[in-house]
Amino acid sequence: MSQPLTVPPGTNIQLSEFDTRFISGDWTKKSATKQIKKNTAVSRDLAYQLYAENRRAVLLVLQGMDTAGKDGTIRTVVTGINPQSCQITSFKQPSHLELDHDFLWRIHNAVPRRGEIGIFNRSHYEDVLIVRVHNLIPEEEWKTRYERINEFEEMLVESKVTIVKCFLHISKKEQRERLQARLDNPKKRWKFSTGDLAERKLWDEYQAAYEDALTLCNTRQAPWHIIPSDRKWYRNMLVSSILRETLEQLNPCVPASDPGLEGIVVE
Amino acid sequence: MSQPLTVPPGTNIQLSEFDTRFISGDWTKKSATKQIKKNTAVSRDLAYQLYAENRRAVLLVLQGMDTAGKDGTIRTVVTGINPQSCQITSFKQPSHLELDHDFLWRIHNAVPRRGEIGIFNRSHYEDVLIVRVHNLIPEEEWKTRYERINEFEEMLVESKVTIVKCFLHISKKEQRERLQARLDNPKKRWKFSTGDLAERKLWDEYQAAYEDALTLCNTRQAPWHIIPSDRKWYRNMLVSSILRETLEQLNPCVPASDPGLEGIVVE
Repeated sequence: MSQPLTVPPGTNIQLSEFDTRFISGDWTKKSATKQIKKNTAVSRDLAYQLYAENRRAVLLVLQGMDTAGKDGTIRTVVTGINPQSCQITSFKQPSHLELDHDFLWRIHNAVPRRGEIGIFNRSHYEDVLIVRVHNLIPEEEWKTRYERINEFEEMLVESKVTIVKCFLHISKKEQRERLQARLDNPKKRWKFSTGDLAERKLWDEYQAAYEDALTLCNTRQAPWHIIPSDRKWYRNMLVSSILRETLEQLNPCVPASDPGLEGIVVE
Repeated sequence: MSQPLTVPPGTNIQLSEFDTRFISGDWTKKSATKQIKKNTAVSRDLAYQLYAENRRAVLLVLQGMDTAGKDGTIRTVVTGINPQSCQITSFKQPSHLELDHDFLWRIHNAVPRRGEIGIFNRSHYEDVLIVRVHNLIPEEEWKTRYERINEFEEMLVESKVTIVKCFLHISKKEQRERLQARLDNPKKRWKFSTGDLAERKLWDEYQAAYEDALTLCNTRQAPWHIIPSDRKWYRNMLVSSILRETLEQLNPCVPASDPGLEGIVVE
């Protein structure tokens, strides 16, 4: 049994065909936790090299239904890497100022600079998800956005920003358990809002909107990864491994030193 | 023998009176490293609470001569805290756009939001340091800035931003050794620029400018800490302890949960 993390561009993605509890090989919570530690150590060094090189950037985009674990993934995957080379942006409800601009305006402003790893907790994809499910704007306005997003991402990739998009895929049943856990645990209850229940009623509409976003924006230059996320440890291990492999492929190098500097004595 | 980290507002600060190699008590590299680990574990939990509470912020300002260790301090003190609750801003040479505004414009824009720990790698203090030493603007323009800075910081404190300012104090001899080490180590050489040597020649002018900034902006609401920084492990331990103590004093609390949420069953 196998389940790919990515599918070729053009594939019509049906989320029901992707098992949210899938585990590849004989991964266990213990071996995954160990792997995450290894990944963090490698990514930490590579992030330093990326920063020193100052030529390219990485953008990790995290999307998923409520409780899918965007915050938890960031906490596990990014903690331990020098925060000076990571920039995390959480996109919340847009401000009036942001709404007075095109939908990519606030996104563009948050793109990581050279040498940096940017992490988007939610992203421009909300503009074809929540906006569509809640009919916030007419269909003719959001339906062109898939192409606009692909063009925007292609431009970033051309500017040496490697884009890694992860959809944290959970089941409706798993979401119920996580919401209930938040309600039942007084220490976690602050995370809960009654709006979460209203959103949950729109589960099917969101899944359909995600399927379109994943299908239409799964490009060669910025493919989507579908991360089985019902098990937190497996989800974290996968994202952490993808980040590590991305950095390894970039293979950033500390810039060559100016030969004119050799032999200088500081007074 | 003792040396305070802070002095009362109004004290005329003479840097020569502060030993850059001072160590309090019987701290060793080993015990300090252990302490940093403990501090990080405590600060990690408190940063989470601060984020959940979403009512107050912390701003850690790091200043110091070249090679004093601003980057290294951030790497050691902040790595291990969830990067989602830390926002690090490195202030470099201002852009044309930034120069077309008042000197606090870009600073204000980077102030941490509620729930966040902001770290400034350099800051608005450069506008009374490098600007003064290099005569970038006339004296009558920079000499009012000390008061403007105090007013700005007071406003932030009133808005529930706790400001922690650390001056990483190294000796001229220590700087020579660190610059030489960068030159002699091909892996570190990328950090070196010949401009560093020109800046070093202005050591005395910079120390005088720092003394004025430390003296005139050492307020009750936002005092300066003078961190003996010739030994990196001691410097890191001090800043890490100050951050931990700041968070402990804030004692952030997860918000009380809405009693209306009890007993809800998710469907």
